[in-house]
Amino acid sequence: MATARVQPDIARPARSVERWDYETDVAVIGMGGAGACAAIEACDAGADVLVFELASAPGGSTALSSAELYLGGSGGTRVQKACGYEDSSDAMYAYLCMSMGPQADTDKIRAYVDGASAHFDWLVAQGVPFRDSEYKARAMMALTDDCLLYTGSEKAWPYRDQAKPCPRGHNLEIKGDNGGPLLMKILAEALGRRNVQVHCEARALQLITEGEGAELEVTGVVVRIDQQQRFVRARAGVVLCAGGFVMNSEMVQKYAPELARCTIPIGNPGDTGSGIQMGLSVGAAAINMHEGFVSLPFYPPASLTYGIFVNAQGQRFINEDVYHGRAGAAVLRQPNMNAYLILSVEDYGDYETNSYLGAPVAATGESVEELEGELNLPAGQLVNTCAFFNEHAAQGQDPLYRKSAEWLKPLKAPLVALDISPGHGAYFPYFTLGGLDTTPSGEVRRSSGSIITGLYAAGRTACGVPRRGDGYASGMSVGDATFSGRMAGRAAAARSKHV
Amino acid sequence: MATARVQPDIARPARSVERWDYETDVAVIGMGGAGACAAIEACDAGADVLVFELASAPGGSTALSSAELYLGGSGGTRVQKACGYEDSSDAMYAYLCMSMGPQADTDKIRAYVDGASAHFDWLVAQGVPFRDSEYKARAMMALTDDCLLYTGSEKAWPYRDQAKPCPRGHNLEIKGDNGGPLLMKILAEALGRRNVQVHCEARALQLITEGEGAELEVTGVVVRIDQQQRFVRARAGVVLCAGGFVMNSEMVQKYAPELARCTIPIGNPGDTGSGIQMGLSVGAAAINMHEGFVSLPFYPPASLTYGIFVNAQGQRFINEDVYHGRAGAAVLRQPNMNAYLILSVEDYGDYETNSYLGAPVAATGESVEELEGELNLPAGQLVNTCAFFNEHAAQGQDPLYRKSAEWLKPLKAPLVALDISPGHGAYFPYFTLGGLDTTPSGEVRRSSGSIITGLYAAGRTACGVPRRGDGYASGMSVGDATFSGRMAGRAAAARSKHV
Repeated sequence: MATARVQPDIARPARSVERWDYETDVAVIGMGGAGACAAIEACDAGADVLVFELASAPGGSTALSSAELYLGGSGGTRVQKACGYEDSSDAMYAYLCMSMGPQADTDKIRAYVDGASAHFDWLVAQGVPFRDSEYKARAMMALTDDCLLYTGSEKAWPYRDQAKPCPRGHNLEIKGDNGGPLLMKILAEALGRRNVQVHCEARALQLITEGEGAELEVTGVVVRIDQQQRFVRARAGVVLCAGGFVMNSEMVQKYAPELARCTIPIGNPGDTGSGIQMGLSVGAAAINMHEGFVSLPFYPPASLTYGIFVNAQGQRFINEDVYHGRAGAAVLRQPNMNAYLILSVEDYGDYETNSYLGAPVAATGESVEELEGELNLPAGQLVNTCAFFNEHAAQGQDPLYRKSAEWLKPLKAPLVALDISPGHGAYFPYFTLGGLDTTPSGEVRRSSGSIITGLYAAGRTACGVPRRGDGYASGMSVGDATFSGRMAGRAAAARSKHV
Repeated sequence: MATARVQPDIARPARSVERWDYETDVAVIGMGGAGACAAIEACDAGADVLVFELASAPGGSTALSSAELYLGGSGGTRVQKACGYEDSSDAMYAYLCMSMGPQADTDKIRAYVDGASAHFDWLVAQGVPFRDSEYKARAMMALTDDCLLYTGSEKAWPYRDQAKPCPRGHNLEIKGDNGGPLLMKILAEALGRRNVQVHCEARALQLITEGEGAELEVTGVVVRIDQQQRFVRARAGVVLCAGGFVMNSEMVQKYAPELARCTIPIGNPGDTGSGIQMGLSVGAAAINMHEGFVSLPFYPPASLTYGIFVNAQGQRFINEDVYHGRAGAAVLRQPNMNAYLILSVEDYGDYETNSYLGAPVAATGESVEELEGELNLPAGQLVNTCAFFNEHAAQGQDPLYRKSAEWLKPLKAPLVALDISPGHGAYFPYFTLGGLDTTPSGEVRRSSGSIITGLYAAGRTACGVPRRGDGYASGMSVGDATFSGRMAGRAAAARSKHV
């Protein structure tokens, strides 16, 4: 067995391990938001814990993110209450179920909603700072140190009709887009206070198993440290928190080829799917592997929301007051994926200096007819579309897609069209939303639903709460990663003999 | 190990097998189109072969189908040539690649296209009858004994612009929708002439493996016969031809929840995904698991093609001369999935007696305005849509979706609207297009691409040539199943010591 190829989708029998270099109860693979929280919880439950992180420092993709956290329910978090919002668990549950559509894992959503407000308190107890203040602009993120903001499509149709809107994005108390590094610094310090050892530059290579068939058990992991294979015995279990697979272009092509139509994979270089592959090596089910978050970051400036999206047929296709990810997902569903954002030049605002979008100007026009001609759209279609839109917008109505009155006003010449077709220059980032099928506690399941003993997963190695690009909201990933990490750490620790 | 749970997603170590009830080179699981062809090829290559079929008779889903076969290329099959068509491999390759979009497996498509015409000859050599005749109507299938017909969207935009259209559906020489039973009768007879034993009422329960990790090898299968577990040693390999998973509602919910929005799963009761699960038990990758064929069978009568599809916004969304599966897939992409087929009553024809669709009449109107009002569509939208369509249709043009001139004529009152929203009564059948990742030869792959020794898959247990509902054409499944079965049978036989 010494010559066995080392690839994460082939496990290694314990019988072939000659010595254990490390022994622990719980081995956590990856120290992003999920891994850090898994380690803290497992330690607090009384287990011995070791963490292995392939990068030279902790952080994972959470440290690269804004680290907004999508939290609420139970009457509201401390911040929601301070800002005057009462957030019911029913409303949050209804919104998440609607957002995830047919993919909704209602057990997982229920557990998340019921625990989200307490999760906020837990984060505060670890030292994570949140101001009791609201950021009211329509924005991708709060660049002030204010906390609470709408980060999804809660106020947009069709959600607002079926789930009472409430802002649930919680931004850390720090200025600029610096929440991710701060959150991970605090979580790393929390681990430090617990004397949990974190091995960096330690790449997990393979799971180690004992038994076969239905008796198979995950009992360790092979890691590479200092260019040597090291054998880690994990008496209670291994928790895979190794991120998603967006940086593995072969896996993206195999599992999520439609996502590759977007332009920029976002994540950290370790998001190679190795955690998911380790799960597959022991018979786990990977689900929702085709789906991803995609974004068309068309605000700020918020004034672009006054514009209308049209496809290559000159037809509108969505209410433009939705979350940028929902807009991006809708663009990808258009025939040929060609689309434009049509807007009054007066709403163009500081687009050129203050936008993440980078969509090129495709045309300008002193009239809709002129714009339509320059865009080579079927003659008369954009004219019809704009006339219909303007007539109703003037009355504060949008009979087609029910954009909210707040963002309705007639388009007024001169007009400009931004080309938002994927591949034409606009920024279209994406990451994966598929992963190992887990119970709400983080146990990894086989396809028929049975549990693989000793294996846990959290964060984007698992298929968590967020499951659809068109229903995503900022904060769902870091919220889900930190929460699911805690659940998985606790479940693994429960198998420890100390506990 | 005697108490091990028996579920297909947990393999059984050979060490726990006390006796072999059967020994063979190649064990084929399932005797639909794929299994029958795998067995014939493996036998013809010199291997000992046993077939295990869970139903009480051979046939699988192929016997339930029309058994059209999507074939062509290499200058044309005998029938294509006799009907005056020269079908280039390049055109067929281009069409299939376009149809499968980002999911296209170009190696698999290339192998299929290069072998399709020879596959036709091979079927003829087995005794499968095809008339040298063409069926020219736009239809779901040929109900005469004519052979050749268009079964996809070859003549429709955007395909026709990039791949020279050619009819590639090959219908067996038999009247009515009876191709499936005839094809399977002939293939079963072909197996009978070879003295290959087919065990019916024999359910495959689990794969049997030897070795572990990278040395793991599939060396047999547990089957249940007469309520007893029987142990089958397969010296060269096991070929999984056990169908897809459309009849397993838990698997559909887990892997393809969007498909469940359709109304009727089509297949045979054995399409429970057990073949795919057996692959997962030994670390195989299952890919494209979310996708499926869906159908909105709106022709015959072909005259319904003169109508226009509109969504709940009163907007058209596709050229109506496409294949019914492509239309169905487009309906599922509409916001809220609400859609109507609007047509002149004069084109309603014999819809009530001669259609598979079963969509209820949602409204009738002496004018578009009246119809729009009855349908509760946003006032003015359907009027705009119809006016734009009619103006251009009168000139044989469709600037929006380039429906071909053959099917363009202005809508003329009185009008009727059929409700084609999923769940409102229309027949919306579906089946799965995801499965085990295989090489073009049928070897089953792990996620990183390495081969699992001794395991092969074909037909809908594998992810084959057809991969998208919106690019599907009738004949792709039976074409792919029979072709991929042959490839897999041959590859498995090549590992036999006799060969």
